[in-house]
Amino acid sequence: MVQLIDDERFDYLLADESMKIIQSPSAFSFSLDAVLLAHFAYVPIKRGNILDLCTGNGVIPLLLSNRTKAKITGVEIQERIFSMAKRNIELNRLTDQLSVIHGDLKEMQPVLAQSSFDVVTCNPPYFKTPSKNEYNHNDYLTIARHEVFCTLEDVVKACKLHVRPGGKVAMVHRPGRLVDIIELFRKYKLEPKRLQFVYPKRGKDANMLLVEGIRDGKADLKILPPLYIYNEDGTYTKEAEGIIYGRL
Amino acid sequence: MVQLIDDERFDYLLADESMKIIQSPSAFSFSLDAVLLAHFAYVPIKRGNILDLCTGNGVIPLLLSNRTKAKITGVEIQERIFSMAKRNIELNRLTDQLSVIHGDLKEMQPVLAQSSFDVVTCNPPYFKTPSKNEYNHNDYLTIARHEVFCTLEDVVKACKLHVRPGGKVAMVHRPGRLVDIIELFRKYKLEPKRLQFVYPKRGKDANMLLVEGIRDGKADLKILPPLYIYNEDGTYTKEAEGIIYGRL
Repeated sequence: MVQLIDDERFDYLLADESMKIIQSPSAFSFSLDAVLLAHFAYVPIKRGNILDLCTGNGVIPLLLSNRTKAKITGVEIQERIFSMAKRNIELNRLTDQLSVIHGDLKEMQPVLAQSSFDVVTCNPPYFKTPSKNEYNHNDYLTIARHEVFCTLEDVVKACKLHVRPGGKVAMVHRPGRLVDIIELFRKYKLEPKRLQFVYPKRGKDANMLLVEGIRDGKADLKILPPLYIYNEDGTYTKEAEGIIYGRL
Repeated sequence: MVQLIDDERFDYLLADESMKIIQSPSAFSFSLDAVLLAHFAYVPIKRGNILDLCTGNGVIPLLLSNRTKAKITGVEIQERIFSMAKRNIELNRLTDQLSVIHGDLKEMQPVLAQSSFDVVTCNPPYFKTPSKNEYNHNDYLTIARHEVFCTLEDVVKACKLHVRPGGKVAMVHRPGRLVDIIELFRKYKLEPKRLQFVYPKRGKDANMLLVEGIRDGKADLKILPPLYIYNEDGTYTKEAEGIIYGRL
């Protein structure tokens, strides 16, 4: 029996109610961003090794386990949230396929093999570290959202360190950081190959981007068709609904 | 009376037939790319100085003259095509506002003032220089399309050299070069601020990009709504039609 702590609750992860996930409003709840990344990322189907950095409550490994038999390792720096990920793996009886490490992605070199993962995914903190008094008072959320423990460069560097040559790195981020992302991917020899922009609705600027790079890949970027989340009337578009409810 | 040379012909430039342009199938015909760039680029309305590099037959200065009273200078390296641009300015009686220089954008420093233009536009050659035997046999078209006389870096460097601090650089290019463009814009302190992707139709990958950078600007990129050119039935979308026929 998996225990809940504080304000944690069980939510269903997919429309068919085949997966449950422990969430916490005060510590960590997964976002649409993670769901889109889990859908966007390339995964080998039958075997291989996948690494998910900044795994949070393990939502990306859980979702990916529906699409691949590869082993998936998550890394989470916050002990409280690592504990949620660990219990989520048990809750869904996925301990044979998924595992999670409590640690700092900048210090995984002695723990995780170098250049060994087929795919590395990451939904990193989006915001540059604010001044002390701007901090979200809830430390769990602040750390998940702001570059407190790791900068974008730390994240890209860790992706490069653990992905094998020819392996893929997939990330979700905000459009305002595209220039930084592209510069850092090039710096760490992760050539951007697929880029998709997510728009809240038609006629609006993009508010999210999905990017996939290949380690030591050749320059040849594709810009995928845009993904719209909402229709004019505020309902999900068919495409977004299909992804969110796990039907695509 | 403006003379036509060889296979040149007069075309109308906008739906209201207020502008004519000399084109040549064998030497230079403007493309949709130039029309989209002329629509995308920011221009000051009442005064200022605009520079258009790789101006070809002058299509971008001609189109911009409908939106601004600023002086516009074009630069074209090929004498045959420079002559078309010159005659196009005369043909449309725009010699007070537009001018064109026959020269190499890499060598404009003694001719054009440094850091002096409010806006620089450019529709550069898209393709990396092919091996000799892959060349298009028509030299005019080869030079307009391939990086024979200037690389992307030469172009970005020239934009930086002539735009004033805080001024804007707008360019049209292929998505496959986005990574290079972003790297070079950053290298030459032209911070990308607006990026728009052009899709031939819904569900296809983008085949064109429009980018605007600000010299010495702060990092803050917006990804504009996508622009679709064709409907499913092959007709122009309303938005594309509005731009192409000069109604937007």
